[in-house]
Amino acid sequence: MSGLQTTLDALKLHFGDRLSIAEAVRDHHGHDMSRQPTRLPDAVVYADNEDEVARVVSACFEAGIPVTPFAAGSSMEGHTIPLKGGISLDLTRMNQIVAVNHEDFDAQVQAGVTRKQLNAHIRDTGLFFPIDPGADASLGGMASTRASGTTAVRYGTMRENVLALRVVTPQGKIITTGRRTKKSSTGYDLTKLYVGAEGTLGVITEVTVRLHPIPETIASAVCTFATMRGAVEAVVATIQSGIPVARIEFLDEVAVEAANRHAGLTLKLAPTLFLEFHGSPRWVEEQSNTVREIADEFGGSDFEWSTRTEDRERLWKARHETLFANQTLRPGCKAFTTDVCVPISRLADAVMAAREDIDNSFLMGKIIGHVGDGNFHVGYLIKPEFPEELAEAERLAERLYQRAIDMGGTFSGEHGIGISKLKYLRREHGDAVDMMNAIKAALDPKGIMNPGKLGQVE
Amino acid sequence: MSGLQTTLDALKLHFGDRLSIAEAVRDHHGHDMSRQPTRLPDAVVYADNEDEVARVVSACFEAGIPVTPFAAGSSMEGHTIPLKGGISLDLTRMNQIVAVNHEDFDAQVQAGVTRKQLNAHIRDTGLFFPIDPGADASLGGMASTRASGTTAVRYGTMRENVLALRVVTPQGKIITTGRRTKKSSTGYDLTKLYVGAEGTLGVITEVTVRLHPIPETIASAVCTFATMRGAVEAVVATIQSGIPVARIEFLDEVAVEAANRHAGLTLKLAPTLFLEFHGSPRWVEEQSNTVREIADEFGGSDFEWSTRTEDRERLWKARHETLFANQTLRPGCKAFTTDVCVPISRLADAVMAAREDIDNSFLMGKIIGHVGDGNFHVGYLIKPEFPEELAEAERLAERLYQRAIDMGGTFSGEHGIGISKLKYLRREHGDAVDMMNAIKAALDPKGIMNPGKLGQVE
Repeated sequence: MSGLQTTLDALKLHFGDRLSIAEAVRDHHGHDMSRQPTRLPDAVVYADNEDEVARVVSACFEAGIPVTPFAAGSSMEGHTIPLKGGISLDLTRMNQIVAVNHEDFDAQVQAGVTRKQLNAHIRDTGLFFPIDPGADASLGGMASTRASGTTAVRYGTMRENVLALRVVTPQGKIITTGRRTKKSSTGYDLTKLYVGAEGTLGVITEVTVRLHPIPETIASAVCTFATMRGAVEAVVATIQSGIPVARIEFLDEVAVEAANRHAGLTLKLAPTLFLEFHGSPRWVEEQSNTVREIADEFGGSDFEWSTRTEDRERLWKARHETLFANQTLRPGCKAFTTDVCVPISRLADAVMAAREDIDNSFLMGKIIGHVGDGNFHVGYLIKPEFPEELAEAERLAERLYQRAIDMGGTFSGEHGIGISKLKYLRREHGDAVDMMNAIKAALDPKGIMNPGKLGQVE
Repeated sequence: MSGLQTTLDALKLHFGDRLSIAEAVRDHHGHDMSRQPTRLPDAVVYADNEDEVARVVSACFEAGIPVTPFAAGSSMEGHTIPLKGGISLDLTRMNQIVAVNHEDFDAQVQAGVTRKQLNAHIRDTGLFFPIDPGADASLGGMASTRASGTTAVRYGTMRENVLALRVVTPQGKIITTGRRTKKSSTGYDLTKLYVGAEGTLGVITEVTVRLHPIPETIASAVCTFATMRGAVEAVVATIQSGIPVARIEFLDEVAVEAANRHAGLTLKLAPTLFLEFHGSPRWVEEQSNTVREIADEFGGSDFEWSTRTEDRERLWKARHETLFANQTLRPGCKAFTTDVCVPISRLADAVMAAREDIDNSFLMGKIIGHVGDGNFHVGYLIKPEFPEELAEAERLAERLYQRAIDMGGTFSGEHGIGISKLKYLRREHGDAVDMMNAIKAALDPKGIMNPGKLGQVE
C-alpha cells in the first residue's frame, strides 16, 4: 500500500467532502451484521456514479490499495469489512432507478438502490421485485452475495433474477455483462460469475433485475405441528407435490417463543409453518386446501389462513424479527447465526440432527428456515464474552456445515462466505477452489478487490 | 503440436481400438450441423469414463495438443469442429444415468446421455426433463452450448436447469462444480461459467439437471393470423399477461408451407402460432381460453386446441422438421440459419424488420421462433455453391444481428457462437470480451481446449 496518502490526496481533490477519514465514518464502514471484529478502512469514498467508481478503482489499482464496496452494510458474514484496510467505497448515493421496462418485466438500477426503494418506485406498474432477504439491502449487495430469502422457493434467488450488470473491473474499466433478454448463448456467463463474487472481482455499479407480476391474490397461512419432524415432512411433501407456494417458512418452538415475545403474537408454542400463496383467488384457495390436507397427514393443526394484508404483514414482520428477538429469550445474548441448505429429501434428517445437537449442548438455540428450498438457519444464543460459549457455537456450527456437505448440500444457502466461512470452502468444492483462485488472479492480478476473501483461499 | 505421434502412440496403448485415425471416423468428427467447412481431427478417442477423459486431457496438456469434445454432433455453429486438429474426444460411450433423485427433482447423468434417453429412463417417476432443442442432443453438449428450445418460455434454458457439473479441467484434473441444492452462496459460480463455455474451459463429464413434474394435462393449440404483426403482438400480449404457456412458437407463411409439404399437414398458409399449455385440466382450459381471447384481439382465427397426444406430437414433429424442410421449398437449397433474441417489447419490430429484409432481397427466407422468449430464427434458403447467394445471406444475417444488438438483444439466443459468430462477440459484449479472454488464459494456459473459439477472441 505504498502511496496510500498520495492516492488519498489526489482523490480528495475530486471528491472533497465525499472522501472521509473521520473516525465515525470509518467505523460505520468497518463492520456489518456479522460477529466479525471491526476493521477500519483508511478512508471512505462516496461515489455518485460509475465514472467515479472507475476513478477510485483505477487509482487504487495504480497504487495497489485495497478497495471494498459498501452500501447497506447488511451482509451477514463480514463481506464488507475491509480486512486489509484501504478504501471502503460507499455506493449508497448511487440510488437512481435507471429504467423500468414494464413490458419486458425488468428494471435497471444503480447498485445502491434498495429492494424496498425499487418496490415503492414500481408500485403502479403491476410488477414487483420479489427477493426478500429481510434487511432492506442494496441490489448491488444482494447481487454480490447471491442473496435470496423467503420467496426464493417460488421466484428464485439473485442468481435467477439478475439479467445483466454493469461492473467496474479491478483495472478500473467499465464493462457490461449480459443482456436484458430472457436467453443468450453468447460467451462466458460473466453476469453469473459476478453474482456471488462478494466484491472480489470488481465493483457492481448497475443491476438489471427481473420483475414479476403482482399476484391477483395473496393469502397467508399459519399451521402448527405436534412434532418438528411432522412440520418438516409436511414441507417436503408440499414441495414434492409441485405446489408453487410463494413462501414456506419453518420456526421451531424456540423461534415461535421469540416471535411471540418480540412481536406481540400469541402463537401456540409448537413447531410452526408460515406460508404464503400467490395466484388467482380460485388458484390460491386450491393451493391452500391442498397444503392443509398435506399438513393434516403430518400432524398439523390449527391451520389458519387469511387474505387480509394486515394479518400477512404482521406474520412476516414477526418472521423477519426473529433474527433480533434473541434478547427476549436470554437477556444479553447474541445469536451465532448459521446457514445451510440440503437437498429437500434430506431436510428432515438435517433439521432433526441440528435440533439434537442443540439439545445435547449447554447452549440454547433456535431453528428457522426457508425450508421449501432445503435452507435453514440455526441460531445459537451465546454471550460472546464467554469464550466457552463461542467455542461451543463454533463446534456445533462446524458439525452442522459438515453434515450439510456430507448430505450433498452446502454450508451457505444465502448468506455467503465473507470472512469466517472461508475455511469451509475447500471441504465443499475441493479442487474447484483452485479454479476460483485462478479466476481471481487473472481478473484482479494485484488482488486489490476486497482482499483476503473469496478467490484467495488456501 | 510437437509430440503428437508420441502422444497418440502412448494413448493407443490404453485405448486400443477406441483410438481411431480412420478417415471415416475422423470425417464424422470433422463437421456438425452448421455450414462450416469440415476440418478433420488427427485422431478420435472414445472415452468410457471421466478417468479416461482426464487421461486424454492430461496427455494433451503435456504435449500441447488440441482437444475438442464431441458427442451427438448436433451443434449448429461449428462448435465441435476441431479447428486446429488434434484429438476429437468422443463422449457418446459415456451414456450412464448415474442417479435419479426423484424426491429432489434432479438427475445426474454422464455427458453423453441424450435428452430422449433421460426422458425414457425417468418415464415412470412422474418427472421429465423439459428442455427440447429439437435434436436428440447430449446433455453435456446442451450444457456446453447453453441450449434451450421450445419449452424455455416455461422451464428456462440449460442455464436455469443445470445444478452441478463434473468437469475435467484443461490440466486434466477432475472437479465438481455446484451442488444439488436449490440454492448455494459458496464461491464463484463455476457451474454457470461452464454452461455455455462451448468446451473451451475443459470437458464436462457429468451433468446434474433439474427435473420437473409431468403436467397432469397437456393441451396443444394452433392459431392462424391475418398478419404477421398480429401474430407476434398476440405473443407479446400473452407473455405480458403472465400466462405460463409451456410453448409458444411462431411460423411465418413460408415456414408453414414447409411444414405442410414436409410433414403432410394441411395448415392454412398464414402466420401461425403453435402453443402448448401444462397444468390441471381446469387450469389448462383457463390458460387456453385467455390466449384465445388475446388472439382474437390481434386478428387470430381458427383457434384449434386439443388434448390428444397424437395431435400434439404431429404438430411438434412438424415444427422441428421445418429445419429440414427447405428442399421442398427450393430443391437443392440449404438453410443459412440465424438465431437472435430481443426483449419482448421489441419482438414485433424485430420480426417485421427481418421479414422486410427478406422481401427486399433476391433470396427466399422463412422465420420461425421461440417467440415467447423473444427468440427467433431466420433461415435464408441458399445454394451455397453460388457465392452471391452466400454473400447475400451473410449481409442479411449481419443486419439481423446488429439490429438485435441495437435493440438490447443478443446475436444468439440458443445456438451459441461456434466459429462463424466469433466476429460479432465484441459488438455485443465490448470490453467484457477481454475478461472472457483473461478467464480462458487463466484456466487453459496452453490453449488446448477447443482452440480458436470462445476465449480467444480479438
